[in-house]
Amino acid sequence: MSNIYDMIRIDGKALSNTIKEEIAEEVKRISGDQKRPPHLAAVLVGEDPASAVYVRNKVKSCEKIGFESTLIKKREATSEEELLEIVKELNEDEDIDGFIVQLPLPKHINEDRVTLAIDPRKDVDGFHPTNFGKMAQGLPAFLPATPFGIMTMLDRYDIDVQGKNCVVLGRSNIVGTPISILLSRKAKPGNATVTLCHSRTKNLVDYTKKADVIVIALGIPNYLKADMVKEGVVIIDVGINRIEAPERKSGYKLVGDADFDDISPKCSYITPVPGGVGPMTVTSLLTNTLQAYKNNFNIK
Amino acid sequence: MSNIYDMIRIDGKALSNTIKEEIAEEVKRISGDQKRPPHLAAVLVGEDPASAVYVRNKVKSCEKIGFESTLIKKREATSEEELLEIVKELNEDEDIDGFIVQLPLPKHINEDRVTLAIDPRKDVDGFHPTNFGKMAQGLPAFLPATPFGIMTMLDRYDIDVQGKNCVVLGRSNIVGTPISILLSRKAKPGNATVTLCHSRTKNLVDYTKKADVIVIALGIPNYLKADMVKEGVVIIDVGINRIEAPERKSGYKLVGDADFDDISPKCSYITPVPGGVGPMTVTSLLTNTLQAYKNNFNIK
Repeated sequence: MSNIYDMIRIDGKALSNTIKEEIAEEVKRISGDQKRPPHLAAVLVGEDPASAVYVRNKVKSCEKIGFESTLIKKREATSEEELLEIVKELNEDEDIDGFIVQLPLPKHINEDRVTLAIDPRKDVDGFHPTNFGKMAQGLPAFLPATPFGIMTMLDRYDIDVQGKNCVVLGRSNIVGTPISILLSRKAKPGNATVTLCHSRTKNLVDYTKKADVIVIALGIPNYLKADMVKEGVVIIDVGINRIEAPERKSGYKLVGDADFDDISPKCSYITPVPGGVGPMTVTSLLTNTLQAYKNNFNIK
Repeated sequence: MSNIYDMIRIDGKALSNTIKEEIAEEVKRISGDQKRPPHLAAVLVGEDPASAVYVRNKVKSCEKIGFESTLIKKREATSEEELLEIVKELNEDEDIDGFIVQLPLPKHINEDRVTLAIDPRKDVDGFHPTNFGKMAQGLPAFLPATPFGIMTMLDRYDIDVQGKNCVVLGRSNIVGTPISILLSRKAKPGNATVTLCHSRTKNLVDYTKKADVIVIALGIPNYLKADMVKEGVVIIDVGINRIEAPERKSGYKLVGDADFDDISPKCSYITPVPGGVGPMTVTSLLTNTLQAYKNNFNIK
């Protein structure tokens, strides 16, 4: 790379593996003797192939680091009542530290109602409003996976955001809104001056051009270009978009919301897609589950 | 006023009275017959004179609009356990729709623990993390009083913030952080592009000078001056600062965080202090209590 910033490509995959190893060692240290290891349960309703892959990855990661796991697969036609009954059982099951209900759910099930039924102490996805509110108020909470993964990356790569101009593109409940809150909290990493941009923002480029750090989560392939940012910017790309690629055997490839080839020479740090933010989300889930386990057994 | 914007002074006191009248009429309409009226309880611990005034105002406002009210006054030496017991009783009391525990509490009591003990369905102050999280996720929730009051003012004065550059100064849990979330939500009023600034923000004036709307909640008397903002700005001033005023009988006067005399000629709208945001906070509490009552009796 011939630029003055020595662009650093943030390796989410390697970092995720490092953290998994750290968790595996901690599990060995704090469990054993008469205590059981941490235990994560995952509920998968229906046949969505992407969801099946995600859940399988989560379960596999559990095995690798010495967690127990339970995968509950239910048919597409499962009723909301049946699912709420499963949630209730998992809430009450003392052998399970945390659990997730994989989203999206079939259309006949109200996702909000299911999320609200999860005991916040077992909500290792950090989707329950109680965890969201605690996060926003600076209280201990399970953080949602993607924002937690981003904060961990910033921390481990020693990217100082304090007092920096951070622009978040996209205001979803699971990425944009929570990461904007986390970046501006009085914490480390944190203390950034954050602007939350979205579909109604006028003159978006006025914001992106001044940003020291951009978190982009719009779901628009290759949206962010070099001429929209300043030299030395940090780009955290949350987008995972599948686009046609006739030259590949599969016929498609994954790209982010930032146009990597165009923009990366201008960056001080950038996350690639794939291999950036993506691998960190499972790590967040495992970290939350370990924390739920510690809370359960009163381990500091 | 000799400026092109026809500066409008937002009259929070008058608006608050209007809304109280509306609530009083609605109470008359929906209660009556065998149903009791809405019932708010307030818990006051200790002898803080400002807190005593606030609570008395809240109780008086209840009387005026036909609510029942209960004021529970406890001595300074009340233990956390005693207070938690009171909270538990209020949670379980079917004759009370909502209640507040006036902050600040004596130092030997953990405020977070008390707030968390309040049933979110009765948390008409909107301080419980569950309500905070629901607010952030766009779910129905009791909004915290000051941000709710500000949103109501914007709505009633028809100040369109959609797509506007809004700058919030101060990131407290009760004002700055929640108002930044509300302004950026997909709602009306809302859809603004919001930047949350705070003590660690560098080059603050770069942000304030571009802002279409500024919400200031810093607690620094007369901080914001005309040369820090652009022509036509909307100023929502949350500060209530007591400064010395030897010319007055009382020896002091209340001023906001914005220097009203200096800045108001440049504004399209501005809230005065006192008489701006302040009176709206009690209105928010009453609106929340009415909503709790409706939830309680299943009134749409």
